[in-house]
Amino acid sequence: MGQFHFLTAGESHGKGLQVIVEGMVAGLPLEAEYINRELRRRQEGYGRSPRMQMEEDKAEIISGIYRGLTTGSPIAFFIPNRDWRETEPVTCPRPGHADLAGVTKYGLEDIRPIMERTSARETVTRVTVGALAKKFLDEFGIAIHSRAIAIGHVSCESLTSRHSEGEQRPKNLAQDKLHEATSIDWQRVESSPVHCADAEAEKDMMAAIDKAKADGDTLGGIFEVIATGVPIGLGSHAHWDRRLDGRIAQAIMSVNAVKGVEIGAGFALARLRGSEVHDVIEPNPHVSSEYREGEAQQFLPWRRATNRAGGIEGGISNGEPIVVGAAVKPIPTLANPLPSIDLRSGEITKAHYERSDICIVPAAGVIAEAMLAIVLADAMLEKFGGDNLKETRANCHNYLDSISTTK
Amino acid sequence: MGQFHFLTAGESHGKGLQVIVEGMVAGLPLEAEYINRELRRRQEGYGRSPRMQMEEDKAEIISGIYRGLTTGSPIAFFIPNRDWRETEPVTCPRPGHADLAGVTKYGLEDIRPIMERTSARETVTRVTVGALAKKFLDEFGIAIHSRAIAIGHVSCESLTSRHSEGEQRPKNLAQDKLHEATSIDWQRVESSPVHCADAEAEKDMMAAIDKAKADGDTLGGIFEVIATGVPIGLGSHAHWDRRLDGRIAQAIMSVNAVKGVEIGAGFALARLRGSEVHDVIEPNPHVSSEYREGEAQQFLPWRRATNRAGGIEGGISNGEPIVVGAAVKPIPTLANPLPSIDLRSGEITKAHYERSDICIVPAAGVIAEAMLAIVLADAMLEKFGGDNLKETRANCHNYLDSISTTK
Amino acid sequence: MGQFHFLTAGESHGKGLQVIVEGMVAGLPLEAEYINRELRRRQEGYGRSPRMQMEEDKAEIISGIYRGLTTGSPIAFFIPNRDWRETEPVTCPRPGHADLAGVTKYGLEDIRPIMERTSARETVTRVTVGALAKKFLDEFGIAIHSRAIAIGHVSCESLTSRHSEGEQRPKNLAQDKLHEATSIDWQRVESSPVHCADAEAEKDMMAAIDKAKADGDTLGGIFEVIATGVPIGLGSHAHWDRRLDGRIAQAIMSVNAVKGVEIGAGFALARLRGSEVHDVIEPNPHVSSEYREGEAQQFLPWRRATNRAGGIEGGISNGEPIVVGAAVKPIPTLANPLPSIDLRSGEITKAHYERSDICIVPAAGVIAEAMLAIVLADAMLEKFGGDNLKETRANCHNYLDSISTTK
Amino acid sequence: MGQFHFLTAGESHGKGLQVIVEGMVAGLPLEAEYINRELRRRQEGYGRSPRMQMEEDKAEIISGIYRGLTTGSPIAFFIPNRDWRETEPVTCPRPGHADLAGVTKYGLEDIRPIMERTSARETVTRVTVGALAKKFLDEFGIAIHSRAIAIGHVSCESLTSRHSEGEQRPKNLAQDKLHEATSIDWQRVESSPVHCADAEAEKDMMAAIDKAKADGDTLGGIFEVIATGVPIGLGSHAHWDRRLDGRIAQAIMSVNAVKGVEIGAGFALARLRGSEVHDVIEPNPHVSSEYREGEAQQFLPWRRATNRAGGIEGGISNGEPIVVGAAVKPIPTLANPLPSIDLRSGEITKAHYERSDICIVPAAGVIAEAMLAIVLADAMLEKFGGDNLKETRANCHNYLDSISTTK
Repeated sequence: MGQFHFLTAGESHGKGLQVIVEGMVAGLPLEAEYINRELRRRQEGYGRSPRMQMEEDKAEIISGIYRGLTTGSPIAFFIPNRDWRETEPVTCPRPGHADLAGVTKYGLEDIRPIMERTSARETVTRVTVGALAKKFLDEFGIAIHSRAIAIGHVSCESLTSRHSEGEQRPKNLAQDKLHEATSIDWQRVESSPVHCADAEAEKDMMAAIDKAKADGDTLGGIFEVIATGVPIGLGSHAHWDRRLDGRIAQAIMSVNAVKGVEIGAGFALARLRGSEVHDVIEPNPHVSSEYREGEAQQFLPWRRATNRAGGIEGGISNGEPIVVGAAVKPIPTLANPLPSIDLRSGEITKAHYERSDICIVPAAGVIAEAMLAIVLADAMLEKFGGDNLKETRANCHNYLDSISTTK
Repeated sequence: MGQFHFLTAGESHGKGLQVIVEGMVAGLPLEAEYINRELRRRQEGYGRSPRMQMEEDKAEIISGIYRGLTTGSPIAFFIPNRDWRETEPVTCPRPGHADLAGVTKYGLEDIRPIMERTSARETVTRVTVGALAKKFLDEFGIAIHSRAIAIGHVSCESLTSRHSEGEQRPKNLAQDKLHEATSIDWQRVESSPVHCADAEAEKDMMAAIDKAKADGDTLGGIFEVIATGVPIGLGSHAHWDRRLDGRIAQAIMSVNAVKGVEIGAGFALARLRGSEVHDVIEPNPHVSSEYREGEAQQFLPWRRATNRAGGIEGGISNGEPIVVGAAVKPIPTLANPLPSIDLRSGEITKAHYERSDICIVPAAGVIAEAMLAIVLADAMLEKFGGDNLKETRANCHNYLDSISTTK
Repeated sequence: MGQFHFLTAGESHGKGLQVIVEGMVAGLPLEAEYINRELRRRQEGYGRSPRMQMEEDKAEIISGIYRGLTTGSPIAFFIPNRDWRETEPVTCPRPGHADLAGVTKYGLEDIRPIMERTSARETVTRVTVGALAKKFLDEFGIAIHSRAIAIGHVSCESLTSRHSEGEQRPKNLAQDKLHEATSIDWQRVESSPVHCADAEAEKDMMAAIDKAKADGDTLGGIFEVIATGVPIGLGSHAHWDRRLDGRIAQAIMSVNAVKGVEIGAGFALARLRGSEVHDVIEPNPHVSSEYREGEAQQFLPWRRATNRAGGIEGGISNGEPIVVGAAVKPIPTLANPLPSIDLRSGEITKAHYERSDICIVPAAGVIAEAMLAIVLADAMLEKFGGDNLKETRANCHNYLDSISTTK
Repeated sequence: MGQFHFLTAGESHGKGLQVIVEGMVAGLPLEAEYINRELRRRQEGYGRSPRMQMEEDKAEIISGIYRGLTTGSPIAFFIPNRDWRETEPVTCPRPGHADLAGVTKYGLEDIRPIMERTSARETVTRVTVGALAKKFLDEFGIAIHSRAIAIGHVSCESLTSRHSEGEQRPKNLAQDKLHEATSIDWQRVESSPVHCADAEAEKDMMAAIDKAKADGDTLGGIFEVIATGVPIGLGSHAHWDRRLDGRIAQAIMSVNAVKGVEIGAGFALARLRGSEVHDVIEPNPHVSSEYREGEAQQFLPWRRATNRAGGIEGGISNGEPIVVGAAVKPIPTLANPLPSIDLRSGEITKAHYERSDICIVPAAGVIAEAMLAIVLADAMLEKFGGDNLKETRANCHNYLDSISTTK
């Protein structure tokens, strides 16, 4: 993190969640409703627990906004908990959670404080910051979406192309991924209970969730996050920790339950040859003479035939859509709890259980959108500087203009 | 990065590479030969260009070591380039490299300065810092190894279990992964030209490399990095950027050509149910009464039956081996160059070509070892503090003792 | 800042002030009343505006505390504003404030958002974080106090010795400053309306404040902050930004209205010779055989005859009390406003006026205590690591023991 | 530190000093001779040891410069030591140095490694980085100079005004300090052996140094660093650690031997009333219609009558020259060593002595110039972003233009 950074606090059964964000420019319009829309998206999805549906999160803007605009001062949010109550001590750690490592690290006897913070409720704060970042990016024509591409063993076509083994080469990798990324029907994805673009797969995914629920079990899956309109030149090859892909990987891997991250065609690239993989550079026949927000790409004198690199080469955004895939493990809190031990007695027992979700892949995608937005907002501010939206936008235009005129 | 951090400089045809490391404790013994051994490992591997074999890198310790020990002062290294020479301007960007995004971002006309820094030669500096980190970790019994598990479409068994589709569930995920991680014959891996534990696969991998070379093409693959002896409690669930998995993901994704990272069973977990995935907690029947370096795990009152989480739950190390997999794309510099455009004229041409490797998967594993070592050394110093090896070790023992006695 | 860091938000007429603190160990007892005591101290002092007296600040603990103890999770506080209301736009910048530079930097037309954040009300959040840090330090026997040593042209004796010119050398610099620092009657200071240890000077200081008030004017002064019980070895000489004196200087200079910072005898040292300045090292005749909290110093095999260095040599704490002096400029908001211009019209006018204090030197001392506590808590955590108070204390004892036994 | 940061390594009798700088834009012309000129300035000054005169430091550019221009890649320098040799162990710590605290912190028996790093030789690396920063600032018309204003008890007029006690108010504070800052004859200062603008004081200063030398003693003093041409709006009031005054205070206090830092009239302000202190805002009658580098100030629609704030209000640069004063303690290495103890035996002895300087006030000023340049370069990059000098300059112009047109 650079100029744009934040801290969050709060537990799942405490008073609420707090967020402070530093480094946003002045002059950005922001209303609570914009954030609440994203919070709602995080709560939805087939396979969530009834608890999730019940309480609708609302972010309150506490400071940093004056007459509807950011001021350059830190921005604070508070999201109250509906489910605020005293909690009982827990001593049987749940496999797959931070429980056991957490109490050991922090020298605690009660697992509760670890559960309270490691809970997915914390992701409310990330979505809140992410909404602010998205609003900022929107001013530059950058849009971020996500979709589920697999839930359990059910996957839509993209995944097959990505992870299939066997004789036939993943042929559709050769297709115009750029076109794919920009042609997804995001409204269809949004209205899908599993955030899936493919109606067939959607049905199977929902059935798989129903089946898991009936068995007292849970499901993971794979989601994809895509950012369009990102200018060429964010991040840097100059030092390992400035590389945009590394920064995105940290941000996405840090989302609860994520166990794998890939950029572009990712793991599928490992099986191909160089001549099949890299994105050929060609002249842009439709080059715009005038720059419009969100069309940074059309403005360049060149373009790529494909986008297997997922919009990042050598740690720098290359002007194509940024495509990130991530694997989500099945939720570790099971209605039929896994074996564990009681930390007081050392005896074998069942892990602690609290009402939980069956599948959170669509929600994980929403959280990952937020994390990607945060990384990109930070990278934009790093590249273009400025303390007021107008100034930062002028600097961005100035840069884009210089590309098209020098080439 | 926290207390332990570093900067590197240098280009592939410049005078050499410089490294400065800050935050290492005093009292650690270090000799150049220890580092040079790692630098040699980075240069080896079937499929490297003859240039790689020719020049053997040697790190010179410039400062920070006094009478064979670190002093707490910054440690500097210099690794001279043998291939130091004037270079010609380049204007045809290579797809798959930082070339095009780099010149655009930095406002350059000549691609050369981008190529020079983005070159894999920069990874010499990471291996150098990683060697220092490994030496430090070794004092705590932490060991780090890597191996290739796929090159092109040839994979050894682990990968099949990891990425197979189809009817049969990846059954061997159910096996004791912990046992697997600690039972790999690392000497066999080291002596394999492709760093593969499986003799059968090794042969096929080498044949695939030969074939790609004959075709003027290149290959990628998948490697695995494993750290054993890591104490429970590194990283933290408390804030997103303190999570150990995220920090590892950034470090590994930042390695040149890596396009995907997974922890433990990673993407394969996405297809399973919760009951099949999480690592059951059971009493440790062989608990040691006395702590010995590298046996932090045997010292705990509990253990895991499996290690599908890859040693990290909730962003915290859980005492099991840390297992990281990564996908490497095929090298983008091709003997039969891909189409590109000339930035001066805008005309269609072939990308620039310089003699290059065919496959660098084993080397990427060595570099990833270094990055994992750096992250873990940083996390150890964060957890245990201290300014002298003796002090940090005493703090670590004190912590481990407190776990076994309070439980 | 290292492991222990924080963000704050809030404006003087907004809903309230928010604070999130990251990196505090688990197991530290904390009650709101402890913090509120410090907040009260910040509000007191002769020369404050009636507004200050009216509203008593109360911090609410929002998260991070469970059953009275910290948990290792981020700690959040909220301090509501009593004076929460709509404010009018301001366009006449006040000399001495951020007003003019602020609106220019952030591209604003209304000065109000700058005034709201740059207001001394923000220091409530620093005192809140500082109270947490003080509580932590208290567990190691480290205590922090402050006192006014000059208000306007009235100074108590220390200052005279510090800044006098003329023939006679500042003789009392030669006296045992260590003794001085530990012999100040802090209860007397606390009960003084101007936080002055000297009853004579106190009377003159109050008279000077009365006089300034009558004239519609304001006064500055000099305060001193002292930390006792600090172990030898915090900070580092190894790199410029790890030096403890530099980190303290930033923290203190960042307090509103502070324009100068000195460590130990500071500016007075510039006039002396080396033989008159440096603190001679001698054996400690009263060396304790057993370590007790707050007596880290008595435990060392050596001691200093004087403490002109103010407890820091070469950027590292040397075991003596840390003594920091700071100059506070007179408050720039004047009842008889200074000339300024109206930013809308460019015409000459008077600066904007809002009811304000006459003199805030004692309060500035309280805020500086907080900032010093924050720097020292961070440096303690950096040196000793640990995630639980017990663990960090054990590491600290282990270090102190090793000093006395090896020497 | 933000985007622009660096690490240094090296000891006074090791092979040499290493520097790596990250975050400088591409396209800045840089030659070794520019840096060497600054290194020479650091070595000069009346009262330096003959050793200082003997060896002339030369920086070698190792990487990051291509065909005379920066490339955006890390820039590395190496400055070889002439006095490279084996050194003997030292066990008698020198009061006033990091010796005692250093060996204790780092758990060493031999003081030598601490002496080697804490030596003023390390400041060669700061001057090197500072030269790079100065070169960058120069492209924006920002110039940085320093001068001695007191050596021992001899001071030139400014100091008297600054620190005098007594009846008469420091009247000349009321004079146009801005005018003063820009009217100093810097060529005269440069050619003075004590970097003093006042010929009378210069003579007395040199005599004081001669006297101290004859007595086997040392002298400190006070220097002033001034930056002109700094645009309004660097730093921020929004969060404590973004305040420019705090960042400058850390940077200057971190210079070896500095014990006090003040901005503008600093400690003298503590004695005055608000109406006497703050810098009245008035219309700028000579406002330029066209911006020229280094005339950011003339371009503003307003100006200040005085500059007692030293160019910073509320943590933000206000467009006036930035004026920083600092107190330097006398060098602690004395020809007649102070009493100390031998750490092996615990017995009373004399501190270790190595040939040293008598007075380094002018050199400290040069080092402080470097530190101020580093802070300002970082703040400029933070404010204006950009990856190429042309881009950053365009962003800066764009900002300055927007000020003059909106007002």
